[in-house]
Amino acid sequence: MVIVKKFGGTSVANKERIYNVVSRCEEDLKKGHQLVVVLSAMGKQTDVLLDMANDINPDAPKRELDMLVSTGEQVSVALTSMAFAAKGIKAVSLNAFQVPMMTTSSYSHARLKKINTERIINELDEGNVVLITGFQGVDKYDNVTTLGRGGSDTTAVAIAAALDADACEIYTDVDGIYTADPRIVPTARKLDEITYDEMLDLATLGAGVLHNRSVEMAKKYGVQLVVRSSLNHNEGTIVKGETNTMERLMVSGVAVDKNVARISVIGLDDNPGVAFKLFHHLARYNVNVDIILQSIGRDGTKDISFTVEKGKLDEALAVIDRHRKSSIKCQSVSVEENVAKVSIVGAGMMDHPGVAAKMFEALFDENINIKMISTSEIRVTVLIDESQAERAANAIHDKFELELSRR
Amino acid sequence: MVIVKKFGGTSVANKERIYNVVSRCEEDLKKGHQLVVVLSAMGKQTDVLLDMANDINPDAPKRELDMLVSTGEQVSVALTSMAFAAKGIKAVSLNAFQVPMMTTSSYSHARLKKINTERIINELDEGNVVLITGFQGVDKYDNVTTLGRGGSDTTAVAIAAALDADACEIYTDVDGIYTADPRIVPTARKLDEITYDEMLDLATLGAGVLHNRSVEMAKKYGVQLVVRSSLNHNEGTIVKGETNTMERLMVSGVAVDKNVARISVIGLDDNPGVAFKLFHHLARYNVNVDIILQSIGRDGTKDISFTVEKGKLDEALAVIDRHRKSSIKCQSVSVEENVAKVSIVGAGMMDHPGVAAKMFEALFDENINIKMISTSEIRVTVLIDESQAERAANAIHDKFELELSRR
Repeated sequence: MVIVKKFGGTSVANKERIYNVVSRCEEDLKKGHQLVVVLSAMGKQTDVLLDMANDINPDAPKRELDMLVSTGEQVSVALTSMAFAAKGIKAVSLNAFQVPMMTTSSYSHARLKKINTERIINELDEGNVVLITGFQGVDKYDNVTTLGRGGSDTTAVAIAAALDADACEIYTDVDGIYTADPRIVPTARKLDEITYDEMLDLATLGAGVLHNRSVEMAKKYGVQLVVRSSLNHNEGTIVKGETNTMERLMVSGVAVDKNVARISVIGLDDNPGVAFKLFHHLARYNVNVDIILQSIGRDGTKDISFTVEKGKLDEALAVIDRHRKSSIKCQSVSVEENVAKVSIVGAGMMDHPGVAAKMFEALFDENINIKMISTSEIRVTVLIDESQAERAANAIHDKFELELSRR
Repeated sequence: MVIVKKFGGTSVANKERIYNVVSRCEEDLKKGHQLVVVLSAMGKQTDVLLDMANDINPDAPKRELDMLVSTGEQVSVALTSMAFAAKGIKAVSLNAFQVPMMTTSSYSHARLKKINTERIINELDEGNVVLITGFQGVDKYDNVTTLGRGGSDTTAVAIAAALDADACEIYTDVDGIYTADPRIVPTARKLDEITYDEMLDLATLGAGVLHNRSVEMAKKYGVQLVVRSSLNHNEGTIVKGETNTMERLMVSGVAVDKNVARISVIGLDDNPGVAFKLFHHLARYNVNVDIILQSIGRDGTKDISFTVEKGKLDEALAVIDRHRKSSIKCQSVSVEENVAKVSIVGAGMMDHPGVAAKMFEALFDENINIKMISTSEIRVTVLIDESQAERAANAIHDKFELELSRR
């Protein structure tokens, strides 16, 4: 079998952890498997490098930032390769150039275009464990790129797809995917299985261990993932197309995201294209907008509220301000920063009407006011006061009895 | 003009120094010059990386060591490029892959084979300062290689040669090449000019700022070098084929090398091939031998003495011991560790008989005993007691009146 294993930054943070990676791989090698191991930068090394860059130039060119941070994974694969050698195991490290992992030229959030598997296969056939730098690529002009947050997961899934690997294992510092963040909901339970779509929603909502781009790619290419801990031998969570549970879970998990702020644009002209212009300008400045709510205002105007990441709030307000005299004519703009998104996700929702109502009932029982609502086929999200987020998550988790296994 | 500038590790050790590099380059840019800047890893970063490797695996594969340490220069060029951007100067960083700088596959001491100048020229023509990682290359299989000690100087010279650059400036933390190490000989004087051959001898003898490989390459391709400080605007020393001084200097400098040990192999059979076998075995284990002295021993045997680096002493003795029963039959082996090499170098020696005698006179006046002597056309080296090295260097420096300029 060909197995792709991905270890995150905490799993290679120091000598002891690096040797732990070698041990985990040895177990598979003894069974005769061929291994491709994708690694992130050690511990907080990416942040250390970004801090250095920020000290030199807070507005550094993205090309040079990618050139800089990509060294982090190269250090990881080289050191880990040395650890394999110390154990008498043949290993070779490859960076994005050496594979190559071809991407677009969008520095800091490049997308993978093509992985050449020839060298990987040759190295495997020569009996090597192949260690590959996660998170990074090269564009057609040989510039170094990075894939953005969660990029190493995406690298692992893409390699598993390109190699048609028999398994793709994502090692992290938690046991798998939980029904909720155990730090917020103490009764949270680890899921044995979850569908790509559920995982996507959980990831997007900030609750997931996996980044949504990696899950999207896994779904697209049908790569079955296992998310598990590098520190114990617990089973982990399988992420796949259809789960085997007798009955599909009505709700798989509860997610809380406090990294959110609400902007309300009040008294916009009620003309066609107003919403388009507003969000077009925001998109041009890479401000991702989440929940959007439009309501009729007074005197033939309309109000649009939406949420953005807290870190993008200032930028979003600046963009609106810049266009208030021209394309975004409005009476006022208000901001609410102390808010949180609480969401439930579950593929079973499609078959079970009344799931949203049950969630709202849980919040009503706790006397928690809902500020905004957004839904998809398999997700319900509410915006509430930030101080009530933990209480809301626990109440919802209890209401749907997520602490009980449905197997 | 196209100028290649090389800055060493101390010149990019921190933010302030990096901005100093930018300032030095700005002066040239204002004059309309195009700049290629070769950088080493920041400060002691290469040693930090090697320590990490040594902690993981003291016997790490050289391929992986090169993969690891090459990240050091990549960090330097990326951060420096950001500093240029902060000053509004267009710059682009290139690693060995991106140039590419093709080398042999000899990890940790690869030799440059070919530099493709197309991308460098394109980037210069687009108005960029081109920042290139020193010390590293790629072999034909895309593996990362490094050039060994002094590698960044070699990179700079090679690029200057490939581009047919108008100047190649080596920036360091000293003002240039001195007649002797000023820490040992207080009256040492900075040289305005020195020939490649003199510089080669000084470099080989451990006294030079430049590594001999870079000087060899400069000589081969006729690249005129300037060695100067990155911290002041003093003139520096020009290294070139023929110096312009009215009269060639009889002696250009005095060098002291304490990193040396003497091995004497006593009572070897006086057969043809004995010396060959001894040095052949040592060469196979990469033990570089310096001064060699052979003398007739007793009873039809011969004695061979030679010097090695102190760090190679144990290895050299082990090699000899391993072959004492077979090809290196001898009566005994003795070692002397407290020795030092003191050398004088000067292209003018060829025209001035009696230079060696004058050196020996200086030592005799100081009552310093000479243990071994070795000479070349432009160099005289003696081996003396380590404790007398400073006194010897000063006496010789005084004898040849090197503190006086001969211009």
